Amino acid sequence: MKLNDKGLLVVLSGPSGVGKGTVRKALFDMPDQNFVYSVSMTTRKMRPGEVDGKDYYFVSREEFEKRIEDGKFLEHAEFVGNYYGTPLDEVNKQLDNGKEVILEIEVEGALQVRDKVKDAVFIFLVPPSKEALYNRLKRRGTESEEVIQERIAKANREFKLAYKYDYIVVNDEVNNAADRIMAIIRAEHAKTWRSIHKYEELLDMKDDKNKGDNK
Amino acid sequence: MKLNDKGLLVVLSGPSGVGKGTVRKALFDMPDQNFVYSVSMTTRKMRPGEVDGKDYYFVSREEFEKRIEDGKFLEHAEFVGNYYGTPLDEVNKQLDNGKEVILEIEVEGALQVRDKVKDAVFIFLVPPSKEALYNRLKRRGTESEEVIQERIAKANREFKLAYKYDYIVVNDEVNNAADRIMAIIRAEHAKTWRSIHKYEELLDMKDDKNKGDNK
Repeated sequence: MKLNDKGLLVVLSGPSGVGKGTVRKALFDMPDQNFVYSVSMTTRKMRPGEVDGKDYYFVSREEFEKRIEDGKFLEHAEFVGNYYGTPLDEVNKQLDNGKEVILEIEVEGALQVRDKVKDAVFIFLVPPSKEALYNRLKRRGTESEEVIQERIAKANREFKLAYKYDYIVVNDEVNNAADRIMAIIRAEHAKTWRSIHKYEELLDMKDDKNKGDNK
Repeated sequence: MKLNDKGLLVVLSGPSGVGKGTVRKALFDMPDQNFVYSVSMTTRKMRPGEVDGKDYYFVSREEFEKRIEDGKFLEHAEFVGNYYGTPLDEVNKQLDNGKEVILEIEVEGALQVRDKVKDAVFIFLVPPSKEALYNRLKRRGTESEEVIQERIAKANREFKLAYKYDYIVVNDEVNNAADRIMAIIRAEHAKTWRSIHKYEELLDMKDDKNKGDNK
């Protein structure tokens, strides 16, 4: 039964400062999981110690743009002059192998995925309170009040998109949040439309064992 | 946040012999659960030791039929000359109190609930294999081969309705099945459409703290 199970594409997103990265790490540390990252593609220069195909796929700007045109990205964005994107074929390969692919991405990128992968699961992380988020954003570094205010404004805009996600998970404590996400993944696998193909044999019970009994 | 949480109506069903009752018991034995039964209503005679309002609500045939007409049942059925039904107001009261109401009912009754409670969660239990179900049906009692064949035929008809449920859960081992159902319940509570009302304060962040910062 397990062999037929396709993996889930889980898109983990939420406003700046909510702790997406920490929750993703906690998920990968859980026992009995089957998670993989998707290696992103970028046009930025390789840094010392980075490995092509492991940290990123490093490609030229021309190649990246060609791939955008060909629809080969699940999502992509430009950031300080460089492209970053998630290659669609990479993700599909992992899903076909039964792996759960966790994409931890920004709110806008996540909504691009929504349009491309109808059966992905979209999770929006929220902080337990406004104050918790403010404190996280302030604690992060040595930024000026202006930068902090910009981040708060950005988080506000991102919150407005929560309704487009399938699930809302509170990051009150990182392991609680990871537990909730594990429950969501288990539940999604049990959804009838995802799993009914596995029970074909049961649904056809009549056709062998009972043959002849009902005329 | 917890105060606003309405309970879930969980309809647990599946073919005869799959072990619905055993799984329901395992759910009620789990730690940290918040489950309640719904007390059914019946027109059959009270038996010695039974308590009205605890084992069943015992009512007259006239009263039961009046209640059917008034749409006061979530589901009802007639069985060897007596009515049995699940009172709607009873279930709603428990849900409003934040309890998870588990209804363990037959496949046909479950589909009546589907029509009445749009936000209920429908779980279809399946056996791990055909053989497992046959063995359970045979093991059950001292019935003749004919009775067993009738039950198998009934299970076959019930299997055909699996696609109408939200989730399919394999009862390979009773505690595994109960764990899967717990995951489903947790996931359902995290669904955006069920939970977004709890985050109103967060979604309105802009309106107080940030007032004045963006002009």
